[in-house]
Amino acid sequence: MDRENEKVNMMMGAGGRAMQDLLKKLTVNFSRRGVADIGLKELDDSAVIGQWALTIDGHTVTPYIFPGGDIGRLSVAGTVNDLAAIGSEGIAIALGIIIEEGFPVEDLIKISKSVGEAAEEAGVEVVTGDTKVVERREGGIYLTTAGIGRMHPYLMENWEIAGRRGGTPWLLDSKVRPGDAIIISGTIGDHGIAVLSKREGYGFETEIVSDVMPVNHILKSALRAGGVVSAKDPTRGGVSNALNEWAEKSGFGIKIYEERLPMNEGVKAACEMLGIEPLEIGNEGKLILAVVREKAEEVLESIKKVKGGERAEIIGEVTQDFKGVVMETLSGGLRIVDPPLGDPVPRIC
Amino acid sequence: MDRENEKVNMMMGAGGRAMQDLLKKLTVNFSRRGVADIGLKELDDSAVIGQWALTIDGHTVTPYIFPGGDIGRLSVAGTVNDLAAIGSEGIAIALGIIIEEGFPVEDLIKISKSVGEAAEEAGVEVVTGDTKVVERREGGIYLTTAGIGRMHPYLMENWEIAGRRGGTPWLLDSKVRPGDAIIISGTIGDHGIAVLSKREGYGFETEIVSDVMPVNHILKSALRAGGVVSAKDPTRGGVSNALNEWAEKSGFGIKIYEERLPMNEGVKAACEMLGIEPLEIGNEGKLILAVVREKAEEVLESIKKVKGGERAEIIGEVTQDFKGVVMETLSGGLRIVDPPLGDPVPRIC
Repeated sequence: MDRENEKVNMMMGAGGRAMQDLLKKLTVNFSRRGVADIGLKELDDSAVIGQWALTIDGHTVTPYIFPGGDIGRLSVAGTVNDLAAIGSEGIAIALGIIIEEGFPVEDLIKISKSVGEAAEEAGVEVVTGDTKVVERREGGIYLTTAGIGRMHPYLMENWEIAGRRGGTPWLLDSKVRPGDAIIISGTIGDHGIAVLSKREGYGFETEIVSDVMPVNHILKSALRAGGVVSAKDPTRGGVSNALNEWAEKSGFGIKIYEERLPMNEGVKAACEMLGIEPLEIGNEGKLILAVVREKAEEVLESIKKVKGGERAEIIGEVTQDFKGVVMETLSGGLRIVDPPLGDPVPRIC
Repeated sequence: MDRENEKVNMMMGAGGRAMQDLLKKLTVNFSRRGVADIGLKELDDSAVIGQWALTIDGHTVTPYIFPGGDIGRLSVAGTVNDLAAIGSEGIAIALGIIIEEGFPVEDLIKISKSVGEAAEEAGVEVVTGDTKVVERREGGIYLTTAGIGRMHPYLMENWEIAGRRGGTPWLLDSKVRPGDAIIISGTIGDHGIAVLSKREGYGFETEIVSDVMPVNHILKSALRAGGVVSAKDPTRGGVSNALNEWAEKSGFGIKIYEERLPMNEGVKAACEMLGIEPLEIGNEGKLILAVVREKAEEVLESIKKVKGGERAEIIGEVTQDFKGVVMETLSGGLRIVDPPLGDPVPRIC
């Protein structure tokens, strides 16, 4: 396409390859000053400066109130979870609100209550904020949350148990190695399907509710067990994108087993009906961990005891037999899990 | 108005009273965990946690490219300036982009270049970011920037010179006291008038360009001279809002002199033509300082030597003779400067 006339499209915001391509064109313009220990080069879950992690995320989910949550809870969880996925404990959140004229004040108050409750649940404090109002369109709302976290108190001990892998205790994507077990903290696809079920043009009956929740307590429990090498929160682009980032940044392969993937029946049914790949659907209350083999069972058991982690499973392992991500299907065949080009469900976060 | 049917309106995002009222309804839902030393209670320029400052701002300016700058430069300057106004030196920025489908990729690249250049100018690093794409409307863009800063190296010395005012070296709004001089770093109203001149329905000829720039170098120079008690960046709601915040939070009065207000002729002419109060127009490259009387001239001279500070002036003083803000007009009369209800020019930042 003629570059001069190229326009932004929905795929470019969907967490897949199209977005990565766009980001490269933008970030090349930002010079590095040596401030960040982990920054734009790594494109990890959060940036790191000394003992501190920093992250930011825009939230544009529609509808802004959905089964199991709303954009307020989603924003706090999203930020706390990004901070967790690098190995930090979120402590403070900055909240930027952009609202369209005509938005019901009552809904705004509801959303702020959700923000407060989710912050309380995660143990973080909303310390500052900003509000802008733009002209009336559909009366929508966007929340952008930035968060800072401190290196998790258990991270150094955990790192010792993980054999001081990678030269840093932070849970970098690049640290996975052959033999590591891959653990997911619960069922996949709930958030995307819950949002989609209320979307105009898709609307269908389901009892599925979003999984949106802060996963910091799950991380804490896993780190205490020890041996966690890397963590991801499989939001945009889903489990597929998260696993492919690990494979790409480490240079190793990841094999998962379809039969071990925890999934609610309603999600399975909806995915079949709509022709959506459940591995590509965004989740908002899950953590995927790479754990040294000898600690995998212990980490799994510790997660299962935490609220929201009851259905955790070991879903696969890292291997040097191939590159990329491969799934052994229910029928015993092997299928390549490509990174998604974009999200099958736009604006679920 | 019936609360159940109350809708968000443009005034609620305009930095004046209507916005303050809305914010109170929202922030009451966020509990305090003792994380922030300066937080939502103070509603100052940035939050403070230990030696660190944290701030966030959404930017929705339209048009997104305007005389003298664009939304990229504006976002970085806005965040660096909020960090400066509390007394910190910005070190890292997190950039959240929300773009509408159909936005020209070329403009997005231009904006990212402006982000990079402004960051370089201010000495900060963009360490992390996020991009979301929403459905096509007018092909617009919103940037939300969060920033973290470290306590300015000169802040403790400056505080000694300011007589350890207020029990903290941070430049809190509440610290101004009778006798303090009020200094502005340059001309007022340029940003708002420059943006407005390109706005559909307003379009007029002017040579005025936006003042958008990071003011951290001006702050540094002032702190080095010593005796700075408080600082504000007069963005939404303009100088009027900034002075009224000082008056309200300190409980003292502020008197300014119209004849001392630096203003470009083009801004004067445009304000007369449009019937806009220049004190209420947002600026994006100015700093207002409250300085102990005996250091005022020295601080003024130090600012005048910094690029962008050449037209700095002492525009008034803090007094115990009255509460609120009063201006002595050119004709020698006194006029109350009320806090603006909203911004006279919507979406200039």
